[in-house]
Amino acid sequence: MTLDQLPTPCLVLDRTILRRNLARMAACAARHGLPLRPHMKTAKCIEVARMALEGQPGGITVSTLAEAEYFAAHDIADILYAVGITPQKLPEVAKINATGARVMVITDDPAVASAIAQEPEPPQTLIEIDCGEARGGVLPDDPALLEIAARLGPSLAGVMTHAGHSYSGRSDAAMAGFAEDERSAVVRAAERLRAAGYAVPIVSAGSSPTAVHAESLAGLTEMRAGVYMFGDLFQAEIGTHALEDIAVTVLASVTGRRAGQVVIDAGGIALSKDRSTEAAPVDYGYGLVLDIDGARSLGHAVVRRAYQEHGVVALDPAAPADLPVGARVRVAPNHTCMTVAAHDRYYVTDGGREVVAVWQRVNGW
Amino acid sequence: MTLDQLPTPCLVLDRTILRRNLARMAACAARHGLPLRPHMKTAKCIEVARMALEGQPGGITVSTLAEAEYFAAHDIADILYAVGITPQKLPEVAKINATGARVMVITDDPAVASAIAQEPEPPQTLIEIDCGEARGGVLPDDPALLEIAARLGPSLAGVMTHAGHSYSGRSDAAMAGFAEDERSAVVRAAERLRAAGYAVPIVSAGSSPTAVHAESLAGLTEMRAGVYMFGDLFQAEIGTHALEDIAVTVLASVTGRRAGQVVIDAGGIALSKDRSTEAAPVDYGYGLVLDIDGARSLGHAVVRRAYQEHGVVALDPAAPADLPVGARVRVAPNHTCMTVAAHDRYYVTDGGREVVAVWQRVNGW
Repeated sequence: MTLDQLPTPCLVLDRTILRRNLARMAACAARHGLPLRPHMKTAKCIEVARMALEGQPGGITVSTLAEAEYFAAHDIADILYAVGITPQKLPEVAKINATGARVMVITDDPAVASAIAQEPEPPQTLIEIDCGEARGGVLPDDPALLEIAARLGPSLAGVMTHAGHSYSGRSDAAMAGFAEDERSAVVRAAERLRAAGYAVPIVSAGSSPTAVHAESLAGLTEMRAGVYMFGDLFQAEIGTHALEDIAVTVLASVTGRRAGQVVIDAGGIALSKDRSTEAAPVDYGYGLVLDIDGARSLGHAVVRRAYQEHGVVALDPAAPADLPVGARVRVAPNHTCMTVAAHDRYYVTDGGREVVAVWQRVNGW
Repeated sequence: MTLDQLPTPCLVLDRTILRRNLARMAACAARHGLPLRPHMKTAKCIEVARMALEGQPGGITVSTLAEAEYFAAHDIADILYAVGITPQKLPEVAKINATGARVMVITDDPAVASAIAQEPEPPQTLIEIDCGEARGGVLPDDPALLEIAARLGPSLAGVMTHAGHSYSGRSDAAMAGFAEDERSAVVRAAERLRAAGYAVPIVSAGSSPTAVHAESLAGLTEMRAGVYMFGDLFQAEIGTHALEDIAVTVLASVTGRRAGQVVIDAGGIALSKDRSTEAAPVDYGYGLVLDIDGARSLGHAVVRRAYQEHGVVALDPAAPADLPVGARVRVAPNHTCMTVAAHDRYYVTDGGREVVAVWQRVNGW
């Protein structure tokens, strides 16, 4: 099967680019002497996980319990569920751990820490630290840190943080600063806990932009990152990787055309309504349109409007193209985690048009 | 099972509101003496389709071939696939029609019209008319209209249009104007075709806002609408229905809290990144947060930031609430078609907390 024959819209994953992206992040972790705990929230796919774990100890990060269950069933035991746990989700965690997995959870809440400690088989738990994003986590100097640790007791396995606010960075220096915020906050929390007598074996931090830009990760025991595997237009704009490093695109067919514009069968569902690049130097609308071979022969052709199943592409007058109804294009995503979430599988290539594998995703919750 | 026990995030469908919304649109169609061909692109669910078809002739509209196949397998024969067909998709249409269904397709392209006519068993085809949206369709006075009709030959079944630009309307008068654009464009196209000797049995138009606001639909043979079944914040703002008529919400759990803010486990995937209300009188961020019973006891609490699996809710200082980690809320969506697309099922209630049914959706393509 080739890209000319696939039903559209669908995801195309270029394995040659994926391999390059994985190697770059592995080198980055090696430079800091740290193991990588890849975040599978983007790929949600066992074949990608196995590639991302080459040369690593084997732990992963996930964003849903559906992912945890799926990866545990595929023999990945060491799993960090990196969204604040609720007491109601603890039985599901216990169920997965009863199969032999070791799902760790996170919390920033004293009452939840007590609920964890009262479980028949409490999961190992990391305390979430806020390093500046103001989303989840306790500040490293917050008295609550020690209270949560005390309530967790033997369930305490360490601390973790994520500098999601690094997405506002627009220079290498700014990114290095966010990376240092991330490192110093979580290391400071670990030091306070150790001073109070806790062991704190795990000091975990990371995001793709900060992993790439960090000058020092001293004091961490592991780094986490996820979107680097596939990349996207927004990550390219904030310097995580080059524009040529986007491994996943949406294959689409032209369904209509008029002067200066074509309509494609990839709209708001197939591409997502994410508009991350609106706040970046170059606004790519709902995605940058490439030709079927993934080359930029269409110039700055972008999906300007996204309806449920229609994407309206503004063509680039400087790059005239003959795109009759039925012609195929590939759309590089604004925010790959959002775009891939609408699809149940990847059609894998090695850079050409031939489909060399079909890999399933685990969606939902 | 009750809403207190469901895994979160998930969709809650209030069947009492759904019934009310269906009755209102059926009355609207009856007022114009027209049959309704409900668009199943939002609900994508056979149980909802059966309710929407009560008292109607039985035809539906769909936005994907996956929907067409699913509804045909559930004994709905008369199906309009309302996204411009490509030649490559015709074999799939033929396959569904070989099971006894009658999937109709649409086009605005002469070359595609020829491809349709050359099929062994050509599907019935409507010519798409542009009534002002500038997305798909030929203008009613375009010479291409007659060329497409000539190429279709006996496959020509009529004309259709959709005033998607009605979403820019902000008053009843503006909406009535868009409805008249829609009606007059498609009726004009039908008249030209009839004058040229074609039968044109189907003259189809519609969108939820124009269906509700149209003064006359003279000349149409059917009306289409979809989002009215569930409603959303944006449709409420443009006057399609009241804020109390939103039938679908996302049930979510609080995963963290700090002053003025809670984090919930419904983020950019569970809610979608759609920001339709950004351009409406009231900006609801990524959704309006209701209590577990769907009541507005939290005031103007909105999801202000949406990460992949985290929604950051800005609480309303005027409506203080005790929301510990694990507390449950329901989020009314900005754009329901986008939000429901991330979920595989509806947990159905009759307005209370008890789940009276679980209905599956057909996602993907």
